[in-house]
Amino acid sequence: MKTMGFNELVLVNPACEIDGQARARSAGALDILSAARIEPDLESAIGDCGFVAGASARKRRLNWPELDARTCAGTVASRLSEGPVALLFGPERAGLSNAELDRCNALVYIPSNPDYNSLNLASAVQLIAYELRLALISEAPPPPAEFPPASSQEMALFYEHLERALLGVNFINPDKSQHIMRRLQRLFNRAELNQNEMNILRGMLSALAPGSGNRPPPDEE
Amino acid sequence: MKTMGFNELVLVNPACEIDGQARARSAGALDILSAARIEPDLESAIGDCGFVAGASARKRRLNWPELDARTCAGTVASRLSEGPVALLFGPERAGLSNAELDRCNALVYIPSNPDYNSLNLASAVQLIAYELRLALISEAPPPPAEFPPASSQEMALFYEHLERALLGVNFINPDKSQHIMRRLQRLFNRAELNQNEMNILRGMLSALAPGSGNRPPPDEE
Repeated sequence: MKTMGFNELVLVNPACEIDGQARARSAGALDILSAARIEPDLESAIGDCGFVAGASARKRRLNWPELDARTCAGTVASRLSEGPVALLFGPERAGLSNAELDRCNALVYIPSNPDYNSLNLASAVQLIAYELRLALISEAPPPPAEFPPASSQEMALFYEHLERALLGVNFINPDKSQHIMRRLQRLFNRAELNQNEMNILRGMLSALAPGSGNRPPPDEE
Repeated sequence: MKTMGFNELVLVNPACEIDGQARARSAGALDILSAARIEPDLESAIGDCGFVAGASARKRRLNWPELDARTCAGTVASRLSEGPVALLFGPERAGLSNAELDRCNALVYIPSNPDYNSLNLASAVQLIAYELRLALISEAPPPPAEFPPASSQEMALFYEHLERALLGVNFINPDKSQHIMRRLQRLFNRAELNQNEMNILRGMLSALAPGSGNRPPPDEE
């Protein structure tokens, strides 16, 4: 990432500390490794981000926008003026989980040989960072958006509100709500809500399902 | 190189044989390693090539055309019909010598952070192979969508349903509903709903606002 001019590394619940081996392997990028933010969970890592693209090798045939690396880089470059963005990568072997991808506005994939598309994590980061560098160098600043984007954290609170409202009218049930909730998350993530729209949707839910806006007390029995 | 669909590897006077360690590191690309041509010198390796691009990190300010990776990929792709071409990489630390670069038709460099442009050999090969793949192969058509898109008529019926639901709970009022309804329309139009999502949203509205799904009789007084 340093070769492409990026320096803000966030590690989510890493498997080990930043130790001597990690420092030795960082070559000339020790400054980035030393300044890396370490967060216990994904929410703390991307909660403030208005746009999150998750790297995924698989074609998932679901309702996320799947952007190739070049298209994604253009999108990210155009969003930067609105606030923080994140490129999210999973662990080397497993990649991102579906639950983690649910937090993304788009999936980003690298066009590759369909018979052998197993790029390792370092290669994937390198290629996507490269495309982003090229997009940023060429990108003219877009006109400012009317409203700032809803943050990832605001989206999470909206989904909680929506789920409570739908549970309250038995549209979903606690045992089997995940399928429909995930469909709805993908739909709204894809729309990339701004804060004005977020306020309208939250107000709408509160009007349609009074009381759903408040979280139950944590120790309620 | 295999991830990007290339398979013709030529090694010039390699430092060691293709041994067990090399095979172990080749991961799923043992077929390419096993079929690698080993040549004693550069002449035997590239003698039959009509166009040779040599990878170089340094700006040499000499009389070679210096092409960035994307431009070089376009050039290589346009030359392929004329005969074999080669992308030439030097050893990890030293890179290509001036004598070796003298054999090249062009230099290819990767745009990178001027303060830290030391891509390693694997990264350089990966990036240039990626650009070449994109130049050579037009993207395969995207996978078919899981569900057909909601039609414009279905969207219009959904907005009518939504408006009745919101009027019913006084979230909007008949005189001044247009502003909020237009915001919501833009949001959902932007998301490009499919029919499955449309069904979920209609069902959700019917559950949250019973009766809103039915249009009032046209001659109701």
